[in-house]
Amino acid sequence: MSSNGLKFISCESDLESSQIVLFGAPYDGTTSFRPGARFAPSAIRLESDGIETYSPYLDTDLTDRNIYDDGDIEVPFGNRERTLALIAEKVDDILKRGKLPFMIGGEHLVTLPAVKSVFKKYEELVILHFDAHTDLRDDYLGEKHSHATVMRRIWEEVGDGRIFQFGIRSGDRSEFKWGEGRIKTCKFDCSELKAVVDQIQGKPVYITIDLDILDPSVFPGTGTPEPGGITYKELLESIHDLKTLDIVGADIVELSPHYDQSGISTAAACKIIRELLLVISD
Amino acid sequence: MSSNGLKFISCESDLESSQIVLFGAPYDGTTSFRPGARFAPSAIRLESDGIETYSPYLDTDLTDRNIYDDGDIEVPFGNRERTLALIAEKVDDILKRGKLPFMIGGEHLVTLPAVKSVFKKYEELVILHFDAHTDLRDDYLGEKHSHATVMRRIWEEVGDGRIFQFGIRSGDRSEFKWGEGRIKTCKFDCSELKAVVDQIQGKPVYITIDLDILDPSVFPGTGTPEPGGITYKELLESIHDLKTLDIVGADIVELSPHYDQSGISTAAACKIIRELLLVISD
Amino acid sequence: MSSNGLKFISCESDLESSQIVLFGAPYDGTTSFRPGARFAPSAIRLESDGIETYSPYLDTDLTDRNIYDDGDIEVPFGNRERTLALIAEKVDDILKRGKLPFMIGGEHLVTLPAVKSVFKKYEELVILHFDAHTDLRDDYLGEKHSHATVMRRIWEEVGDGRIFQFGIRSGDRSEFKWGEGRIKTCKFDCSELKAVVDQIQGKPVYITIDLDILDPSVFPGTGTPEPGGITYKELLESIHDLKTLDIVGADIVELSPHYDQSGISTAAACKIIRELLLVISD
Amino acid sequence: MSSNGLKFISCESDLESSQIVLFGAPYDGTTSFRPGARFAPSAIRLESDGIETYSPYLDTDLTDRNIYDDGDIEVPFGNRERTLALIAEKVDDILKRGKLPFMIGGEHLVTLPAVKSVFKKYEELVILHFDAHTDLRDDYLGEKHSHATVMRRIWEEVGDGRIFQFGIRSGDRSEFKWGEGRIKTCKFDCSELKAVVDQIQGKPVYITIDLDILDPSVFPGTGTPEPGGITYKELLESIHDLKTLDIVGADIVELSPHYDQSGISTAAACKIIRELLLVISD
Amino acid sequence: MSSNGLKFISCESDLESSQIVLFGAPYDGTTSFRPGARFAPSAIRLESDGIETYSPYLDTDLTDRNIYDDGDIEVPFGNRERTLALIAEKVDDILKRGKLPFMIGGEHLVTLPAVKSVFKKYEELVILHFDAHTDLRDDYLGEKHSHATVMRRIWEEVGDGRIFQFGIRSGDRSEFKWGEGRIKTCKFDCSELKAVVDQIQGKPVYITIDLDILDPSVFPGTGTPEPGGITYKELLESIHDLKTLDIVGADIVELSPHYDQSGISTAAACKIIRELLLVISD
Amino acid sequence: MSSNGLKFISCESDLESSQIVLFGAPYDGTTSFRPGARFAPSAIRLESDGIETYSPYLDTDLTDRNIYDDGDIEVPFGNRERTLALIAEKVDDILKRGKLPFMIGGEHLVTLPAVKSVFKKYEELVILHFDAHTDLRDDYLGEKHSHATVMRRIWEEVGDGRIFQFGIRSGDRSEFKWGEGRIKTCKFDCSELKAVVDQIQGKPVYITIDLDILDPSVFPGTGTPEPGGITYKELLESIHDLKTLDIVGADIVELSPHYDQSGISTAAACKIIRELLLVISD
Repeated sequence: MSSNGLKFISCESDLESSQIVLFGAPYDGTTSFRPGARFAPSAIRLESDGIETYSPYLDTDLTDRNIYDDGDIEVPFGNRERTLALIAEKVDDILKRGKLPFMIGGEHLVTLPAVKSVFKKYEELVILHFDAHTDLRDDYLGEKHSHATVMRRIWEEVGDGRIFQFGIRSGDRSEFKWGEGRIKTCKFDCSELKAVVDQIQGKPVYITIDLDILDPSVFPGTGTPEPGGITYKELLESIHDLKTLDIVGADIVELSPHYDQSGISTAAACKIIRELLLVISD
Repeated sequence: MSSNGLKFISCESDLESSQIVLFGAPYDGTTSFRPGARFAPSAIRLESDGIETYSPYLDTDLTDRNIYDDGDIEVPFGNRERTLALIAEKVDDILKRGKLPFMIGGEHLVTLPAVKSVFKKYEELVILHFDAHTDLRDDYLGEKHSHATVMRRIWEEVGDGRIFQFGIRSGDRSEFKWGEGRIKTCKFDCSELKAVVDQIQGKPVYITIDLDILDPSVFPGTGTPEPGGITYKELLESIHDLKTLDIVGADIVELSPHYDQSGISTAAACKIIRELLLVISD
Repeated sequence: MSSNGLKFISCESDLESSQIVLFGAPYDGTTSFRPGARFAPSAIRLESDGIETYSPYLDTDLTDRNIYDDGDIEVPFGNRERTLALIAEKVDDILKRGKLPFMIGGEHLVTLPAVKSVFKKYEELVILHFDAHTDLRDDYLGEKHSHATVMRRIWEEVGDGRIFQFGIRSGDRSEFKWGEGRIKTCKFDCSELKAVVDQIQGKPVYITIDLDILDPSVFPGTGTPEPGGITYKELLESIHDLKTLDIVGADIVELSPHYDQSGISTAAACKIIRELLLVISD
Repeated sequence: MSSNGLKFISCESDLESSQIVLFGAPYDGTTSFRPGARFAPSAIRLESDGIETYSPYLDTDLTDRNIYDDGDIEVPFGNRERTLALIAEKVDDILKRGKLPFMIGGEHLVTLPAVKSVFKKYEELVILHFDAHTDLRDDYLGEKHSHATVMRRIWEEVGDGRIFQFGIRSGDRSEFKWGEGRIKTCKFDCSELKAVVDQIQGKPVYITIDLDILDPSVFPGTGTPEPGGITYKELLESIHDLKTLDIVGADIVELSPHYDQSGISTAAACKIIRELLLVISD
Repeated sequence: MSSNGLKFISCESDLESSQIVLFGAPYDGTTSFRPGARFAPSAIRLESDGIETYSPYLDTDLTDRNIYDDGDIEVPFGNRERTLALIAEKVDDILKRGKLPFMIGGEHLVTLPAVKSVFKKYEELVILHFDAHTDLRDDYLGEKHSHATVMRRIWEEVGDGRIFQFGIRSGDRSEFKWGEGRIKTCKFDCSELKAVVDQIQGKPVYITIDLDILDPSVFPGTGTPEPGGITYKELLESIHDLKTLDIVGADIVELSPHYDQSGISTAAACKIIRELLLVISD
Repeated sequence: MSSNGLKFISCESDLESSQIVLFGAPYDGTTSFRPGARFAPSAIRLESDGIETYSPYLDTDLTDRNIYDDGDIEVPFGNRERTLALIAEKVDDILKRGKLPFMIGGEHLVTLPAVKSVFKKYEELVILHFDAHTDLRDDYLGEKHSHATVMRRIWEEVGDGRIFQFGIRSGDRSEFKWGEGRIKTCKFDCSELKAVVDQIQGKPVYITIDLDILDPSVFPGTGTPEPGGITYKELLESIHDLKTLDIVGADIVELSPHYDQSGISTAAACKIIRELLLVISD
């Protein structure tokens, strides 16, 4: 594991006493448009140094929590299968130690091995998926393992009624069609989130946030910007709505820092991670 | 006509069987601040390759429509009059074939010859004008033909009561004053659009969208960014509100791709064009 | 005083007949993250040349007002104390002439000498503070005089109950704690502004706007972008809400033009200044 | 004439006592690739504030010379003919006063009216043309008046044997062919300049420098970057080689500041102007 | 094969009558630092529209040659093996038709399948390799197939004495050591090229140009900029030096257009391709 | 001392066994034009991770040396005097331990306390100063302690005949004049370096490299780009020429990473540091 020694701000617990283990998965090998999500973990850690650890929204502080930043998976560029295996191994290890895995991508395909590992431990697992895209294709350019097929592959593991999508505003007609009855797709925003949260109380929950759910005005630094997204305040509120859930794993993916000339996307990612860490470790 | 062989996604009908003829007018010769709208047609076509043809908003797909992308007018840089004549010629030809012209600018002056051609055919023509600026000056730096005077010149053709403006938030005091009683200017947003749509049912309508109606946060890539604009969702909703109208021509102008470092403006333009094409060809 | 001869648009009154004296304080010496607010005054003046002097919101025009642009303080880079003294001197002089000081920063520390000067003249002074950050630390990296401590230093001058903050969304836990009972901190937005305006009717008021109160989507060009800010329309409305107040001094700080690649932040700053000048000189 | 009050550093003589009159011609209407040379005069003036007036190459100082910066021609965007007429008028006026015209473009077409004016006064006129491009087309996209035809139009005025080109590395086959015997074209660099200088001693000389003669590594901020250009040191040496000539007019064209993200092109332009002013006013 | 209909300028021969078949291999899956070489083929084609087809260096014109632009390999992102197979297939097909393959990458690994195909046909094959990096590692992060190992893999095919490297200025100590006696590595520049050209007269030659051989001042838009490279003029001269060789295949790799903000790298790539096409098809 | 845990590549010796102690001085408080040199130490460390530790120029490897990266001075922004004192303290401590100080700036003023500390220990100290600027002003905007006065202040310590400048191409006439007889100023390049090296054999030498000695084409990312600089190869050769000297301290200053959009300046800085470390620790 390597991350040049950088750590996400205040995540300086030792491994043993930590509640959450944060790690980076800097892989972007199946990105079809603008690559560069590989740079997200280190950009986020570096910028996190400038944010406050205190959340005025939650009136609580990261410095009161026990989080261990375990650095990055060392990605063998060009080898998708080995990369996915390394992520699975890492999540297995975190779970075995009784800690909660919190992954920073990387592109969305990294969610597949993480969810599979978590699902092995929690067979009642429910997935809350925040995204602009359905990611429900059966294959993409002939490939079964792709950022554009990741939720389809996850469905193959967990089955019907387990995946809830929010903010979705882009996809093939056939993806939306296929999803009907299998997956709950809440289009355009998160207005149905509160109802879903009520419905899944008590179940183990995995949270995966593709940051392109945010409007490109707020979050230009991503591979495929999709206009018409939710605002930062809407995403923040959604995260705060998760407080009552039994979250057992989480990830945040698809920041591409080199397309973030003004730095506002990385700043937003850091704050979203802080708020999600505070909600999970509550 | 030339566009390096590029076509807007899925606009691959042949000319004969097409309902709509899309073409580019890459002229920005009277732009007074940041030029570069000339690059919009090719940037839009190139990026369109990455968007979905399916609209989850309208639950319909571009692949079901017959649209022909006829490439670009070949602009003689420095010669405004010849440029305007070439556009007029192109629109005349499209109309003569019984097809609907859909132009991608370029700066806003390109709308003048297009509207004049359409007005020759449809003398009851009504113009819906989405913009940050009134464009109602009598002259600009001594010039009668300018992006800043285009709606005044169009008024001289079509007369009182035919032009409806939405989203306007910038102009000289005298422009607003002059417009009173001649032009319906809806300031700041599109809240009055639905009422106008009801009022003009059954009339032939030309739609001209200056993309700087959008807030610069959503659409930084334009010649003269004006803060205080509408959101992408508001513009989308406005376009969907046009469904009941008898649209006979349309254009989308003022994307300046070289000021769109993050690419979000071009992404927005592509989606707006898709939605407007779907609404028109309904 | 020097500003390369540039003037903010239409601020071309002579000193004697002017009501407001505008000047630049291009200092950013205590900026801890991205410096460059020093470039704001000249960037704003240069861009102001392209904006309309007429406000369609207020239906009034800058050309009807008497404002004198006095150029910039000549900042001795590296010498914070001399810089603050030069600002104090300038504001003292403006007040002695019976004019109203309107300062363009620079970073937020420039507000300290300006408020101190104004407070000497108006001992009932109330400060309305628009910002993303509390700026209430007692010291920052051991320094008492810093952009991060400026409101604490001002409080030491004016005392309890005089400072009202709006839009605050970032700070240390201890800053929020300390402020309780001393300063009115309205978190996240300006929804309580109208009530405050009612409460302080008749009192002399100083307005300080740290432009990072705006969401980074609208205003990326600043030292420390903080997601979750207010929209441009919200800030505009807030400024219009100040109309009934007896404003005796004002400043606008923290534009950092070199982080404003698309130019939208500078455009927003110009319009905000126009509106605030129109409101003050009403 | 307007330039927001900005002046090129140290060019603060009054008109009467000046030897050289500098002015800007911010026109880029026939630019076929990347426009924006319109922004060059004000970008150059603004940045010039940061350069030294002393040349260690020539051991002499701009502060010892009498140069008047007369601001910019007010360009009527979209009207090429009126623009060219305004330039001709300005140069005529400067010459009538017995002063030397020094123009900052704008695109290269602005050289045409300037040379025509100078040629009326000096019928023995010789033109030294530094450029990457021949600019010898008979027409460009059907237009006779274009940046790509400017030297052909000038040849029509001055005839054979009067134009000497240096650094040329791009053009149509037919342009090079046509030029043979009419124009002396020194390809790729300035190695033949010294011989030409010897040959034209005593003749009145007009200098036109298209800054794209520089290699794009040194000068990326231009409309059409052409790799394989000369270095900054080579251009500097060439300018110094002009010292013995009787220069009667000069221009520097084709900086496009918005493509100069790093600022190095504008910095180079400022220094080139300083050195050329020092050489001319010697 | 798809390239949005774009073609490299003047490469509009039909397949049958063509001498050279140009195609793009937009793969960058093993890039370890800044990805984005995938965008090179379309960026190069789009920009090529603005360059002259005539070379004043060679006094010859692309319009006189028969070159067919066959578009791009459709890369299955994430699947390195399938990508390499598709390239091999394409080159096999071109060779079977008796034409010469000319590939635009993509990252350097794309050279491996191309050379293997060419080597099957020409067993005397010699490879001239222009690059900043040795690319001689045995594996990279455990991967045998990588941009950093490509010349080692090629050596495994062709054996000792067949590979000649020029411009090399970066690599591990062990790479340089290993190469001794197996590969001729000419460090830092191309000064030994002429001697090598003499030595290999009459042999079939494959040319592979990693554009990062150029100094980053000339060519910033690449994955791993290495200061200390050769100038554009040096590379041009080297290409011209190849005229007497029997070239049977060629590629140009490692332009990463999104890191080419000023556009100068893409401009250089277009010219280099023009010159190499002219030299090969001579 | 803090640097987020980052270290310059391979500088991972422990303090005790190290020969050289590297540290960062991220101060840019007197920068008069473009600030941001504060970001240099962390940008350099982060990028250094991607460079080779082996130098093919010197055929030697950083991994064979003992260098300790001690992180950054914690700069109290806005307080120049405390900053300079902290640097002095750090250098004193390094020298007391018998190690060699190697500082990464920051702006050039940081050299003053470092040289003063070194001079206390080595009273025969000679300073080799590589720069575009003389830095010999007596004051700058009234300030004695400034990046523009640093060599004058150092002269006040060490006296006549101790300072040798190379590459100088910018300064006031009075600076050059004043320096005559006191300081050896080699203008424009390093052609006299070898002679100077011969002359100072055996003396203790401090090396200070202001990276703006490089041409802006190679090194755009600096506060004040000065065209006409030396090439990367010339600087490299100059560094290699220092091998026979008894170097007792060194610094590298004035990289401003936020003006280095393409990343080439940071890449160059990393390589220059590697080569200088190898030369010093030889």
